[in-house]
Amino acid sequence: MIFDFLNIKPKDAVYISADQLRAQIVSILVAVNVPKEHALITADILVMANLRGVDTHGVANLLEYIPMIRSGEYTIPQKIHVLQETVSTALMTNGNGLGFVGAYYAMQLAIEKAKNTGVGQVAVRDGRHIGMVAYYPMMALKHEMIGMAVTNGSRSVRPALGARPRIGTNPIAFAAPAGKERPFILDMATSTVSGRKIELAYLLGVPIPEGWVVDSKGKPIRNPPFKRNENWSQNPLGNTIEQGGHKGYGLAVMIDILAGVLSGGGFSAKFKFGQNMTWVMAIDISKFRPVTKFKKMMDNMINELHLTPPEKGAERVLVAGDPEADVYDVRIKNGIPMHRTQVTELDSLAKEVGIISTLSK
Amino acid sequence: MIFDFLNIKPKDAVYISADQLRAQIVSILVAVNVPKEHALITADILVMANLRGVDTHGVANLLEYIPMIRSGEYTIPQKIHVLQETVSTALMTNGNGLGFVGAYYAMQLAIEKAKNTGVGQVAVRDGRHIGMVAYYPMMALKHEMIGMAVTNGSRSVRPALGARPRIGTNPIAFAAPAGKERPFILDMATSTVSGRKIELAYLLGVPIPEGWVVDSKGKPIRNPPFKRNENWSQNPLGNTIEQGGHKGYGLAVMIDILAGVLSGGGFSAKFKFGQNMTWVMAIDISKFRPVTKFKKMMDNMINELHLTPPEKGAERVLVAGDPEADVYDVRIKNGIPMHRTQVTELDSLAKEVGIISTLSK
Repeated sequence: MIFDFLNIKPKDAVYISADQLRAQIVSILVAVNVPKEHALITADILVMANLRGVDTHGVANLLEYIPMIRSGEYTIPQKIHVLQETVSTALMTNGNGLGFVGAYYAMQLAIEKAKNTGVGQVAVRDGRHIGMVAYYPMMALKHEMIGMAVTNGSRSVRPALGARPRIGTNPIAFAAPAGKERPFILDMATSTVSGRKIELAYLLGVPIPEGWVVDSKGKPIRNPPFKRNENWSQNPLGNTIEQGGHKGYGLAVMIDILAGVLSGGGFSAKFKFGQNMTWVMAIDISKFRPVTKFKKMMDNMINELHLTPPEKGAERVLVAGDPEADVYDVRIKNGIPMHRTQVTELDSLAKEVGIISTLSK
Repeated sequence: MIFDFLNIKPKDAVYISADQLRAQIVSILVAVNVPKEHALITADILVMANLRGVDTHGVANLLEYIPMIRSGEYTIPQKIHVLQETVSTALMTNGNGLGFVGAYYAMQLAIEKAKNTGVGQVAVRDGRHIGMVAYYPMMALKHEMIGMAVTNGSRSVRPALGARPRIGTNPIAFAAPAGKERPFILDMATSTVSGRKIELAYLLGVPIPEGWVVDSKGKPIRNPPFKRNENWSQNPLGNTIEQGGHKGYGLAVMIDILAGVLSGGGFSAKFKFGQNMTWVMAIDISKFRPVTKFKKMMDNMINELHLTPPEKGAERVLVAGDPEADVYDVRIKNGIPMHRTQVTELDSLAKEVGIISTLSK
């Protein structure tokens, strides 16, 4: 993770292989009536987040989803289908079930459409949390396509000049293939940091840097509570007007429009916690120019960026996707470090849904 | 303008009507062999920037373009045509002429394609400065469409952790129609501020806030030189890693990919000053759901954002496009305030190209 103070301490880490983790997630999901195919998709997305070091969006979040499935807040099994479409676009319902599944099928459909017309674009309503947003644009890479995805969420961020949360952390993700270099993979909240980093800091008992969160008077808070309420907000990317806070705010609303208003699923200010609408796009590079030439220019650009002299104290200039790819290479070999508390909690969750846990073995 | 210290002082302002300004720009452009139709498009985009208060991207920039036209650096008259296309996408060349014209025709084509397939997407190579980027997505509004445009430029911004400029200010603009409320119109550089605001501060002799520009050691500069060089850089939106500088950087590269690598026109790090490639998209709302319902939800969202209690010292929370729409309403009635030096310079420019100036009358 880019912020070292949010890393798990070595003494608290238990290493589990991706395969073992995936199998356990599938078993838990199937035990609460999630169809096998949906469980496989969800498990792959959650484990991929852990493999890439995006632990805030990994398997531990099952502790949030399973109670919402068991209480009936999620509709399981969910019915996903297309409500309206053209050769290049579609509106889809996620059926109020696992958000991962609707977003996954939406990206598959966008890719199919892009094969025919150069671009495919799908908006998803009745959605839920879709996890690490980068997963969906990354699906486009193996088809030699550019992928993009945005998702909106319930209010936790203040508009520029505002004193209350009215927008979500509304992230955007974008992936483009390269040749010899690794693909460009951007995945960012339009707030200073993702909301789950704030929660993680709370759980670890560490203060957050100034600029991430303010109270309703605009004063920085370094130890915000775990639960959201009207008295504190995250800052939009840029923070103050002078430093461009209206830009992070503007991007968040742009994403509310694409994911929420275009789909009809709703916007951040009126969401309840756990609602997330999605919009995905795939662009077939070959419909613009030869893929080999595109990739060669990508390589040149990435190389040029890597060669930028670093600022004092920095080792090297990175390109979006570098840190996650580095972590992936290590974890696919050595396993995924999980906090021992999380492993115990996942074990209890397995027991609760009536299956045998395989993680602590 | 959002930053008061960059405003023209009343004593320096000369008021000129939009019509008068447009006519003068057309005459100057035609005098240097720009075809009438191209001149009309360019003049409308430049004057619209002034009308909306985006003076940094207004008619005064003719002082930059005309010498580049006369020296042969721009190819005039330019040949714009489609190099490759599908029902939903196109690759277009701007013919190395006025960037405005290629971007305008690209958006027109994107809108036509969106009418048929729900989405149209056009990448433009051999491009030049396109001015106020918001103009192009705004073209989509009267067709009940969402518009989006991005453009890349020569290097002036440092990558996060970098000590030298390697990315452009690479802006993004996005417009979506509303019902009773004004449309949402976002137009933002992915750097802390646009490069032309730095130039304007230089011309006005006022220092810029810390956080906008750093030297090659990463130290803030409040009085950067007018001309770009390797020893100073703008900051990406977010500035430091802690505050999300890697996000502004990532967005700038995403825009390099869409506008530059997809089109084949090239990327910021290797551009010479004045090269700008463009990518535009139009989305037909009616292909997703009824436009009236979309607009009603837009109204609800905008209203909700406007109702956010403001932070201490702020009058009200704005939505992207509000400040520009307010300025437009005043200037369409009272005329456009131009700095008297700019008027004199435009007069000289007219004389230089052999026509009679109508501005100072």
